[in-house]
Amino acid sequence: MALKFMTADEAASLVKNGDNVGCSGFTHAGCPKVVPGAIAKKAEEEHAKGNPFKINIFTGASTGDKLDGVLTRAKAINFRAPYQTNKDMRNAINNGEIKYCDLHLSTMAQDIRYGFYGKINVAIIEACDITEDGEIVPTCAVGISPTVSRLADIVIVELNRWNPKELRGMHDIPEPKDPTHRESLPIYGVQDRAGTPYIKIDPSKIVVVETNEPNEGNAFAPVDEITTKIGENVANFFVTEMEEGRMPKSFLPIQSGVGNIANAVLAAMGDNPNIPNFNVYTEVIQDAVIELMESGRVKFASGCSLTVSNPCIEHIYKNLDFFKEKILLRPSEYSNNPEIVRRLGIIAINTAIEADIYGNINSTHIMGTKMMNGIGGSGDFTRGAYVSIFVTPSVAKDGKISSFVPLVSHADHSEHSVKIIVSEYGVADLRGKCPVERAREIINKCAHPDYRPLLTEYLENAPIGQTHFDPYNAFAFHQAFMETGDMRNATIKKR
Amino acid sequence: MALKFMTADEAASLVKNGDNVGCSGFTHAGCPKVVPGAIAKKAEEEHAKGNPFKINIFTGASTGDKLDGVLTRAKAINFRAPYQTNKDMRNAINNGEIKYCDLHLSTMAQDIRYGFYGKINVAIIEACDITEDGEIVPTCAVGISPTVSRLADIVIVELNRWNPKELRGMHDIPEPKDPTHRESLPIYGVQDRAGTPYIKIDPSKIVVVETNEPNEGNAFAPVDEITTKIGENVANFFVTEMEEGRMPKSFLPIQSGVGNIANAVLAAMGDNPNIPNFNVYTEVIQDAVIELMESGRVKFASGCSLTVSNPCIEHIYKNLDFFKEKILLRPSEYSNNPEIVRRLGIIAINTAIEADIYGNINSTHIMGTKMMNGIGGSGDFTRGAYVSIFVTPSVAKDGKISSFVPLVSHADHSEHSVKIIVSEYGVADLRGKCPVERAREIINKCAHPDYRPLLTEYLENAPIGQTHFDPYNAFAFHQAFMETGDMRNATIKKR
Repeated sequence: MALKFMTADEAASLVKNGDNVGCSGFTHAGCPKVVPGAIAKKAEEEHAKGNPFKINIFTGASTGDKLDGVLTRAKAINFRAPYQTNKDMRNAINNGEIKYCDLHLSTMAQDIRYGFYGKINVAIIEACDITEDGEIVPTCAVGISPTVSRLADIVIVELNRWNPKELRGMHDIPEPKDPTHRESLPIYGVQDRAGTPYIKIDPSKIVVVETNEPNEGNAFAPVDEITTKIGENVANFFVTEMEEGRMPKSFLPIQSGVGNIANAVLAAMGDNPNIPNFNVYTEVIQDAVIELMESGRVKFASGCSLTVSNPCIEHIYKNLDFFKEKILLRPSEYSNNPEIVRRLGIIAINTAIEADIYGNINSTHIMGTKMMNGIGGSGDFTRGAYVSIFVTPSVAKDGKISSFVPLVSHADHSEHSVKIIVSEYGVADLRGKCPVERAREIINKCAHPDYRPLLTEYLENAPIGQTHFDPYNAFAFHQAFMETGDMRNATIKKR
Repeated sequence: MALKFMTADEAASLVKNGDNVGCSGFTHAGCPKVVPGAIAKKAEEEHAKGNPFKINIFTGASTGDKLDGVLTRAKAINFRAPYQTNKDMRNAINNGEIKYCDLHLSTMAQDIRYGFYGKINVAIIEACDITEDGEIVPTCAVGISPTVSRLADIVIVELNRWNPKELRGMHDIPEPKDPTHRESLPIYGVQDRAGTPYIKIDPSKIVVVETNEPNEGNAFAPVDEITTKIGENVANFFVTEMEEGRMPKSFLPIQSGVGNIANAVLAAMGDNPNIPNFNVYTEVIQDAVIELMESGRVKFASGCSLTVSNPCIEHIYKNLDFFKEKILLRPSEYSNNPEIVRRLGIIAINTAIEADIYGNINSTHIMGTKMMNGIGGSGDFTRGAYVSIFVTPSVAKDGKISSFVPLVSHADHSEHSVKIIVSEYGVADLRGKCPVERAREIINKCAHPDYRPLLTEYLENAPIGQTHFDPYNAFAFHQAFMETGDMRNATIKKR
């Protein structure tokens, strides 16, 4: 049967107030780019008439401004999960306008299937190709597209001609059965495939909107002296681990988070001659991975998205034969799956907003209140990792904020799951250490020297137990920042 | 070849100062009971001579007093992982005498294999049977015995005649390969087997100490009105979930933590006619499971240990034909494995020491300082669960301590992993809720009425953002308890 084509406005008219809408995309990569704008316009029209119009948005991770941004500014979003990075959306979340549920990314698709969020009414999926029998080939990301496409009553496909049809083959798209019928997820190496190269659904529920929209591929902040040093510390740690026999000399697959520190770590690994060529099993494949792929240092990269700058994606598109042999894009349920993470023995490297002296990590909240982005996949990878690493510069805001505090203002990863912390000053190895030993290790190896005496004073002054913890001083650093704008002014109250 | 038999004192002489010693046992079940005492005696003799003598102890979980207790009292332990429940050991940990590393139980065996703790010198394994070619049949628990037996230079087997040889067949003992060679852990249903009914090692490194020692099987505190109500709330929640189509009507396997609340939950499930007969996939099989097995309500139970009272274990031993068809004991790496937990869709039910209004859980530390037991398997199950539940009475110490506080004094499970919280007052469903909605749900459904105004006052007064968090008041409850012995005296400082 012939596919139904329509305009973005016509497609937007299919979306109703209160709908649960599942979208493609994982970061800006692979997101729909015109229908959300048409929905935003419709929302504004309804609001002008005094009618309510808000929808609930489910995606793989964050999306681009053409989705989260435009819908936020139109006040068209009631609920959002599981991750976001858009400035306007962040503000709306933090002032209570949008209800945001911050989830481990690997769980989003299954929790939708389990019925925890109600029915998915509409899916909006960016594709580079579609067939009349309902084969949808995603663009630069997979996310939760297989699940929301299958479950939705209406599937709006943005057929984005900016992306070549020849991407077909770069994706592997399985969907697991649910308990009690789930089987092993059959990924035993980074290159393994478990599904089809496309999403296949009933074509009668598809409507197609043709577009030709470039990616929103902005580069991250460049690598600087601090991030370079962090990267070198991580790379040197790996070399020591191999020398000591605690890591296979053939090495293990790498997961690295998103941003410039992740790029610096990958660059340092690439530069270190004692680290063999390696594989990547991660959620977001960044520019640095592509560069290392071309130099031969990265052998293969499996991820949920190709989140690269526009010059980089254009380069990939011009050399698809080369890259299709080295890149595989999977649903977030597979890219981030703890079963696969643990089986493959992935080395997880994620960025902390702040860490406390015991190794608990804040990945989400600035000063305990303001949501930054979300936990993303950091929990999926950290918990199952062969060795879990968190990286952070020792200070922020010209030294006024210490990344190492007596107690994190929001705990996303507990001390039980965090093995290694790295700053530009060094590597804190928390394995086999009790809390007080961990505290001394983190203070002496990772904290900025300006803060070491204060942190030690907190530790020595606090009521003892397995953990030295003082409810009167635990947030002395945060209070000093709120009162004076500088954590160095913290005072530890004597007991 | 013939096995070497020796006395406990002779076996203890094989253990050297500084040794890494891996022991069988998971709770008191399956622990060695005479050799640790002999080591303790040796330690005291060495200390009397002015010689150092301390060892590092690795087990599946906690152990009995005849291991952790005697060695602690002899000041013979330097380091301990991954869990403990012994009073003397707890005190020694909290006063800094023993270095205790509190770990997710599923990771202990693999982290030893990965070399994170150095070489295992000696293993001490309780067995009900042993053959000349090195087949060791454990008693009431498996824990990390397969790994430490294989890796140790010397394996001391306590052949405990109190346990019948006919236990052979109740255990399933695989050991996974390590990355990058790990395969699927082939457990697709609670009854599936992946290994042999015994641990098989090189017999030349075995020495046998014959014993006849009863278990340390004390009963837990009896179920009371509060715990009964918690159990009923959990059971009713399951019925609603099935009715609403969010849980399969065929039901899912249950994991339940250790103690009297877990017993109450299981009893209430057994009593509820709308819950079908069910399976258990857990770490610790308690008395309540055995009772429900006899009534036909529990169809099959897979666990790491049979942690039952002595009358119960004697009853099982007298009816082994019945129970061997319904019980399987596995290594902790399998009983608690997140891969299997997620695949089977396990319903995880664990006890919280305290929860905060956002759903973060403290499972380990009293008032943020004193280690209680450890995180145990609660993280292994919670993170991978189909639905994760934490249960707690709303108050402790006659109402002087609220289990629900503005901020947990130690965060073991973050809000991202916790779906449901249950007290005797009701069920807080945190799914699809943003932090402020979660806070209202927990305050109104679970907190004790005495504390609801104070918690609401904290919430309303705190600086806003995705999370309302006030570093000046976050520990107001804990401070009130420290100052007055009653959290009801907490005052929320106005901003």
